[in-house]
Amino acid sequence: MAGNSFGQVFRITTFGESHGVALGVIVDGCPAGLPIAAEEIQRDLDRRKPGQSALTTQRRESDRVQILSGVFEDLTTGTPIAMVVHNEDMRSQDYAATKDLFRPGHADFTYWKKYGRRDYRGGGRASARETVARVAAGAIARKLLAAQGIAIIGYVTQVGPVKITKKDFSAINQNALFCPDADAAEAMANVIKEAQAKKDSIGALVEVVAQGVPAGLGEPVFDKLDADLAKAMMSINAVKGVEIGDGFRVVELRGSQNCDPITPKGFTSNHAGGILGGISNGDEIVVRLALKPTSSIAIEQDTIDIHGKPAKIATKGRHDPCVGIRAVPIAEAMMALVLADHFLRDRTSQMERL
Amino acid sequence: MAGNSFGQVFRITTFGESHGVALGVIVDGCPAGLPIAAEEIQRDLDRRKPGQSALTTQRRESDRVQILSGVFEDLTTGTPIAMVVHNEDMRSQDYAATKDLFRPGHADFTYWKKYGRRDYRGGGRASARETVARVAAGAIARKLLAAQGIAIIGYVTQVGPVKITKKDFSAINQNALFCPDADAAEAMANVIKEAQAKKDSIGALVEVVAQGVPAGLGEPVFDKLDADLAKAMMSINAVKGVEIGDGFRVVELRGSQNCDPITPKGFTSNHAGGILGGISNGDEIVVRLALKPTSSIAIEQDTIDIHGKPAKIATKGRHDPCVGIRAVPIAEAMMALVLADHFLRDRTSQMERL
Amino acid sequence: MAGNSFGQVFRITTFGESHGVALGVIVDGCPAGLPIAAEEIQRDLDRRKPGQSALTTQRRESDRVQILSGVFEDLTTGTPIAMVVHNEDMRSQDYAATKDLFRPGHADFTYWKKYGRRDYRGGGRASARETVARVAAGAIARKLLAAQGIAIIGYVTQVGPVKITKKDFSAINQNALFCPDADAAEAMANVIKEAQAKKDSIGALVEVVAQGVPAGLGEPVFDKLDADLAKAMMSINAVKGVEIGDGFRVVELRGSQNCDPITPKGFTSNHAGGILGGISNGDEIVVRLALKPTSSIAIEQDTIDIHGKPAKIATKGRHDPCVGIRAVPIAEAMMALVLADHFLRDRTSQMERL
Amino acid sequence: MAGNSFGQVFRITTFGESHGVALGVIVDGCPAGLPIAAEEIQRDLDRRKPGQSALTTQRRESDRVQILSGVFEDLTTGTPIAMVVHNEDMRSQDYAATKDLFRPGHADFTYWKKYGRRDYRGGGRASARETVARVAAGAIARKLLAAQGIAIIGYVTQVGPVKITKKDFSAINQNALFCPDADAAEAMANVIKEAQAKKDSIGALVEVVAQGVPAGLGEPVFDKLDADLAKAMMSINAVKGVEIGDGFRVVELRGSQNCDPITPKGFTSNHAGGILGGISNGDEIVVRLALKPTSSIAIEQDTIDIHGKPAKIATKGRHDPCVGIRAVPIAEAMMALVLADHFLRDRTSQMERL
Repeated sequence: MAGNSFGQVFRITTFGESHGVALGVIVDGCPAGLPIAAEEIQRDLDRRKPGQSALTTQRRESDRVQILSGVFEDLTTGTPIAMVVHNEDMRSQDYAATKDLFRPGHADFTYWKKYGRRDYRGGGRASARETVARVAAGAIARKLLAAQGIAIIGYVTQVGPVKITKKDFSAINQNALFCPDADAAEAMANVIKEAQAKKDSIGALVEVVAQGVPAGLGEPVFDKLDADLAKAMMSINAVKGVEIGDGFRVVELRGSQNCDPITPKGFTSNHAGGILGGISNGDEIVVRLALKPTSSIAIEQDTIDIHGKPAKIATKGRHDPCVGIRAVPIAEAMMALVLADHFLRDRTSQMERL
Repeated sequence: MAGNSFGQVFRITTFGESHGVALGVIVDGCPAGLPIAAEEIQRDLDRRKPGQSALTTQRRESDRVQILSGVFEDLTTGTPIAMVVHNEDMRSQDYAATKDLFRPGHADFTYWKKYGRRDYRGGGRASARETVARVAAGAIARKLLAAQGIAIIGYVTQVGPVKITKKDFSAINQNALFCPDADAAEAMANVIKEAQAKKDSIGALVEVVAQGVPAGLGEPVFDKLDADLAKAMMSINAVKGVEIGDGFRVVELRGSQNCDPITPKGFTSNHAGGILGGISNGDEIVVRLALKPTSSIAIEQDTIDIHGKPAKIATKGRHDPCVGIRAVPIAEAMMALVLADHFLRDRTSQMERL
Repeated sequence: MAGNSFGQVFRITTFGESHGVALGVIVDGCPAGLPIAAEEIQRDLDRRKPGQSALTTQRRESDRVQILSGVFEDLTTGTPIAMVVHNEDMRSQDYAATKDLFRPGHADFTYWKKYGRRDYRGGGRASARETVARVAAGAIARKLLAAQGIAIIGYVTQVGPVKITKKDFSAINQNALFCPDADAAEAMANVIKEAQAKKDSIGALVEVVAQGVPAGLGEPVFDKLDADLAKAMMSINAVKGVEIGDGFRVVELRGSQNCDPITPKGFTSNHAGGILGGISNGDEIVVRLALKPTSSIAIEQDTIDIHGKPAKIATKGRHDPCVGIRAVPIAEAMMALVLADHFLRDRTSQMERL
Repeated sequence: MAGNSFGQVFRITTFGESHGVALGVIVDGCPAGLPIAAEEIQRDLDRRKPGQSALTTQRRESDRVQILSGVFEDLTTGTPIAMVVHNEDMRSQDYAATKDLFRPGHADFTYWKKYGRRDYRGGGRASARETVARVAAGAIARKLLAAQGIAIIGYVTQVGPVKITKKDFSAINQNALFCPDADAAEAMANVIKEAQAKKDSIGALVEVVAQGVPAGLGEPVFDKLDADLAKAMMSINAVKGVEIGDGFRVVELRGSQNCDPITPKGFTSNHAGGILGGISNGDEIVVRLALKPTSSIAIEQDTIDIHGKPAKIATKGRHDPCVGIRAVPIAEAMMALVLADHFLRDRTSQMERL
């Protein structure tokens, strides 16, 4: 109800603020018997971790995860898995000067309006630091999916005007941008540095695909697989658009151009992005998300304070110049959470399979 | 769980198939004391109704709604409001010949895989006819919102290559396309007829705005207002993309271009589309959705039958050549459902307001 | 949220008032492929139907159920099953005289306080007539359970001071009281007639057992099987107490008297009522519920009107002198709904069984 | 879905095992602006704490709670409140010898059947130690209710054959049994010691009342206030029966004996226990729960091992001889959680109050 839970059968509830004691998550509904080691979760957390290159925020967090429950002798027990990550490198003083100001493009103003108060330190709950909990939970979902032969891969396809021209999945983890095109990665890095030099930031496009998804996942009408993916992706900080398969291109297409003919060997194209009528069709699932340029910029902007008086603000703190980069492991986590949930939900679709 | 419910506090559950006995909805959680007359609901249903122009399907349905419960002496009582619309103009025989074939671009194949069987008549539950229930429920949500000074307006902004060049809201209900640009409407109609003449179909872009939304609606993290809107819109048949405010344009923008400065008089621009950190900021909420061209086309396509054998199919039946048109009242309904739910959810945000 | 839904995976949502147009239910989450005929549902409804003996209300309702969706060619399709029962024998005029009075022991006063208004005709939504929808849904749950070898049997064990002294299940449907002891049934009937003669009513005790339930159903901590059964039973009109196995007797027992030793052949006793730690242990599940005497009595009582002024009321209308009798099929339905839901929920407990 | 969450608007999710790293809870949906200090929560935890008298388990836990999120400058912020209690005095070796045996009366057997494995140390998740999380969350609910003038008081009314003969609320915290009758408390203590001396245990009856509850809380049909209370109480370890107001006594009562007449000054009696039609009527809410004698007894019992072979077991470990005593603060917490949730849910019942 208050919006901090996600999923129905594989269900997570997260907590924590940017400058609070700790962030964490409870994963409820994970079947018993899944092998889980803290190191596996750490691996995904490390991909999301700040301070790893000149292109991301310089906040230094070890982001060490601790499993508090639900795992016994390295196997899930079927009971809730609680995980916690303590905050370490907080510089709350960075925020003291602006604690009564609303940073444009941020949730400062809206949290204030909603709750009548706010934890102003680093954006509090609205900070992208919250996603550390999603990635920890996503690592478990990913493990569950891997046992079913499902893999999830995310990558940056565009930064500002620079688009990839090839998809070499082996390149993704070879550069700091999760980019499947080594050449484009370089150009993207330059665009980011350029923006940074001007105290500015830049937007990005991220694509996530799921391979090996069986046909039949997703529920009709409201909890369509694409609807849940859209929600999952749009819930990530800074995302302003989500599309599946051909996405916005369909507006200009004719039916004969957009349809995917079916043959005994499968679909001959994948305009649909792997989903028909809200249910997976066995093809690769393809989702793209548009991430706005970081709102925290060092250029001075107009704003008001909590008393409604006009003010100027130039965000200091430590920020990613392009939030799209670190969104990659987060988007993968969200895709994993949606698929794990729908995989489990689908277990009761047919009498024959009970 | 099975995906036929939407909303948390203002919650609807729908039922019904394209060629079944009836379609309907239960609205649970509507506060007591809202004036409701069947005619008001009918008004919205009539906007969605098929067979109203040459540009939509020729299926003739009166779509008369009957209220079965929850309203007494013209006021809601706080108990569930059940509404039902009986099917009338079914030509199930149109589907007899193709009952063992999977129509490309449709849910035939995926429902078969999920459930091991399907109601093949007119797509069964996967038919867009299902949305009649959403529109009926949306009419009540809209009434609730109107009492709070919130209005919702949807319209077509693009059909194939034709884009609107102005937004004259008074024009929207003056043409069969819900288009706020009378000239563009004519050009759009021509594009549709052209596609139809070639047994083909065409995509469309729809925009929905909400005016008068107070700041503070939406929940943090997962149930962000934009996340729920994205799910709501993506759950509509044929939608392949959803964006908020600047949407996919943000990819190429810099932070200084995308931010909305704040002044004592409000935001000086609305790149954000009225939502910051998942919570409404008091500005107009702006959502766009991309609708694919109708998958049911009379051009012959490759497919397989339920035994996996190759076959050819040219969909007959009666279909909209551009599903985007009739999506307008549906998208308005979904926007109303999301906002009504979040308006009610927000009632418990602050101790001061309990 | 508004309380008209029950269950998580096998989930029902009901609607309807005592004197409204119709009552009904949407069953969502029933697996595809379950054979369902309207006659099977009717069979359960007929057991609950009013006017069947001198011991129950004389309201005459045929209670014919119509299936509106979700069943195709006599099998469930996996989509929502909507069922509706129209009201026929309403005498709303019976309530005109008391429409401004609160009947003691009824929900009149509390609905008024909660909603600021109420449908006074026959108790509106608070009427036990609402349970017709539960029984219809329960019939489908029962069918699902039967396919797993699970059977549910309910019966009256006490009316006023008269208790059964034997449990002959074959006798249950041979008398108007669902009593497994023919002799006790006669004595119970006399107690009821006696109360009726004095314009009064009488309480009753109902027991429901489930046979064939496999070990492992139920979720830890909050959604324990017994916790969900307690909620299910307490949600039935007039129920004031629920117990499992030895129930309230445990207060006076020692651990050595209350424990059920385990042997390779199973438990040697069933003090636990088939549930340990909230999870079924494979033994018979035993639940008892206490039903208060009907609050609608023809003896004059003190009350107030909606303006707070004192008044006298002697309920007329047509009422069961012992609501416990007709509670039997309702309690069976609720037990079936809980077990069907937990059976489906348990499908994802173990990786090995996915 | 997996049963570790409770409540709809004021919603908690708990985690943790008896001998794991820590136990804890996330409270989601608490309105912003509620003053909360860790000491207040500690106060309630201390009442539940083990090792406080000879009548309870000798396990020594400081049960220090740490708030990880959701509170800023001593006020709730509206975001999730996570609390954690670390385990300290674990003697897991006590369980090594019986790790392959199922303790009769415990969840050992049923968890094994459900999950195919189990954390055998101290009962794992099924241990009553889990309730530390409920009490922590309940303390916040209680604070919220206190701001509305609602108070909750629990006490023991019977241990084995010894019943209280008076209710002196000031006595409750003056004895180790939470007993409102000092004399009865002594007799109860003797009954417990007697059972203990014989390596046995004893049952108990607990009553919880809520004062100051306004009329109108509770939702119709399934989420009745009494139904949710029944679930809440039955979900507590060892509870086998729940009743409201007159409870099981109603079976033998006539309508004229059980009804509560209404006068301009209120109800003249409270047979109903403060709830009519599932909604609070403004009177005191009265709930009673029956707790079975502790299943862990040192008397040897028959059981089997995980391979199905017969065995003998006499539980060692450290256990409460009468679990009913420490159930008092737990039952209070559950009552507080139900009322806080329904108080918030009721905020949207009427258009006039939005």
